Amino acid sequence: MRNIRAIIYGVGRMGAIATRLMLEQGVEIVGAISQSPSKVGRDLGDVAGLGVKTNVLVESDAAAVLGARAPDIAVVTVSSYLAEMYEHLRLCADNRVNAVTLAEEALYPWRTSPVLTAQLDALARERGVTITGTGQQDVYWVNLVALMMGTAHRVDEVVGRVSWNVDDYGPEVARDQHVGESVETFARFAAGADRPPTFGRNTLDALVAGSGLRVASIENTTRAAVAESEMYSSTLDIKIPTGHVVGFTDIDTIRTVEGPVFALEMTGSVYKEGQGDINDWEIHGEPDLRVVNPAVPTQVTTCTQLVNRIPDVINAAPGFVTVDQLPPLRYRPFPLGAYLAR
Amino acid sequence: MRNIRAIIYGVGRMGAIATRLMLEQGVEIVGAISQSPSKVGRDLGDVAGLGVKTNVLVESDAAAVLGARAPDIAVVTVSSYLAEMYEHLRLCADNRVNAVTLAEEALYPWRTSPVLTAQLDALARERGVTITGTGQQDVYWVNLVALMMGTAHRVDEVVGRVSWNVDDYGPEVARDQHVGESVETFARFAAGADRPPTFGRNTLDALVAGSGLRVASIENTTRAAVAESEMYSSTLDIKIPTGHVVGFTDIDTIRTVEGPVFALEMTGSVYKEGQGDINDWEIHGEPDLRVVNPAVPTQVTTCTQLVNRIPDVINAAPGFVTVDQLPPLRYRPFPLGAYLAR
Repeated sequence: MRNIRAIIYGVGRMGAIATRLMLEQGVEIVGAISQSPSKVGRDLGDVAGLGVKTNVLVESDAAAVLGARAPDIAVVTVSSYLAEMYEHLRLCADNRVNAVTLAEEALYPWRTSPVLTAQLDALARERGVTITGTGQQDVYWVNLVALMMGTAHRVDEVVGRVSWNVDDYGPEVARDQHVGESVETFARFAAGADRPPTFGRNTLDALVAGSGLRVASIENTTRAAVAESEMYSSTLDIKIPTGHVVGFTDIDTIRTVEGPVFALEMTGSVYKEGQGDINDWEIHGEPDLRVVNPAVPTQVTTCTQLVNRIPDVINAAPGFVTVDQLPPLRYRPFPLGAYLAR
Repeated sequence: MRNIRAIIYGVGRMGAIATRLMLEQGVEIVGAISQSPSKVGRDLGDVAGLGVKTNVLVESDAAAVLGARAPDIAVVTVSSYLAEMYEHLRLCADNRVNAVTLAEEALYPWRTSPVLTAQLDALARERGVTITGTGQQDVYWVNLVALMMGTAHRVDEVVGRVSWNVDDYGPEVARDQHVGESVETFARFAAGADRPPTFGRNTLDALVAGSGLRVASIENTTRAAVAESEMYSSTLDIKIPTGHVVGFTDIDTIRTVEGPVFALEMTGSVYKEGQGDINDWEIHGEPDLRVVNPAVPTQVTTCTQLVNRIPDVINAAPGFVTVDQLPPLRYRPFPLGAYLAR
């Protein structure tokens, strides 16, 4: 068995958790990349709040770090959408480094950003590396649901209801969820032709593709989640006045050529006291099925899936490989290097 | 695409449901086997209560049916334990016919019946066919739990609580659950050295093996479920007096060499009015996780898993292949023949 050598690419809230998990699972971290002036030049252990030095300094020149350290993989936690992720993932592939990311759109970007995805896929194939998007969607919103569907004789409709706490994922995600905006500003975003894809749509695209079905039509409704009294966003450190936006709910619906309908209601918002994450899926058909996670520690499971997927991504065939094409995610009782294919 | 040709081997309660599901999923049924004098010689459609003729007669000579019809697979629903299943599965393999069964012990029989399993494995390899045990345990008790474990950083303990209604599975299973016995008779069974393996143990063996862990110790506690007032078993068509056995609960615990502990409390009993099936699993570790199916139509999902697994079993490498080694079960919107490997 050999160690896996990884670059942590982005050391925000998620990157910090992933760093600890990787170190505890026997991954050798051979580089850390950030553009933040407050992080560059410091020890990764300090930036990630580990309480120990890692003897890895955070650096800003991504190409230099990727090119010089012979890593097996880069663990990329930078932003949510493929347009912003493209250059980061391109740099990884160009330097012959596999990449796993929790960028939400990267879960299944073939239909929402087909050109960028095809370009990354072609480059990854040429360079012999794999790019995969994972995170909370991987098991809880896609593979768990696909597995339950596997126990159905006939599926008419798949209906999911999920929620997550914006404050768990850092300021980048909170700004993408329009936390603190007026409802008027939010309405212009929601109505705009250039709004980015919903995470729900990428989730449903993965479910539909993984079932071998074809998309007939797509519908989206978006509604703001509004503060009923003054609220506080810890990740942005701002107070949100009554009547302002604390996040939003997307309801995405995909009808398939073959018949089954897939719908997902996804809420990402600042939470009230005592509010918890939801993961609740119903399958209507023969028979009716339902699966629920009564309490989901989404912040942590986002990172555990990112890290536990590392060997699957290294082992996968080259290209942009989505999680519906990977083996089912499995617990890793041994150091991650033990799961590398011979 | 070609049709899958199947033999239905055993046409009791489960075989009847499986027959309908197979026909609706484009499987060609080329033979039906039963030892029951009340079924032999009749049309399978009548025996299975389909309301239509299938033009397949139920026959009693298993070897002749398996040998003459060139089936791809036999769907075997005869009994629960490998000692009783051995000859049926041997006949399938000997005739170069793949076999999928919902015999509970067949889910993972390598530790409870190692010699019989090794013999079947060797014969299946020699004849180039696959034998697999599936059923409710496949997704709900093994692969669903393994998938959730895949989102854990560290697993200390996996604790499952499941139940099923004895009356859903026919008289053979009800007798195996000792329905109607006195508590004294049951106590002799539970204390006996020759009692068959618990289904819980086979389930946990599959989970442990699928996680790459090794069994350190096994513990079992069995307690009778007792009628608090007179109850009725529909599958046996008997009244059960107050104080007599309506089924039982097994609590199996496996400790592993590597640390994680697996425990399963499984109850199979005649149900009271309004009682429903339970499937509830907790994973204690980092983080704590839980998955629940609020209502499980176990009778149907037992058969859907049996049928949806057919292409996986035909596609698998030869031998006795357990479900932890198969691809994740998936919904089959197209005729089952579409899922055969090229």
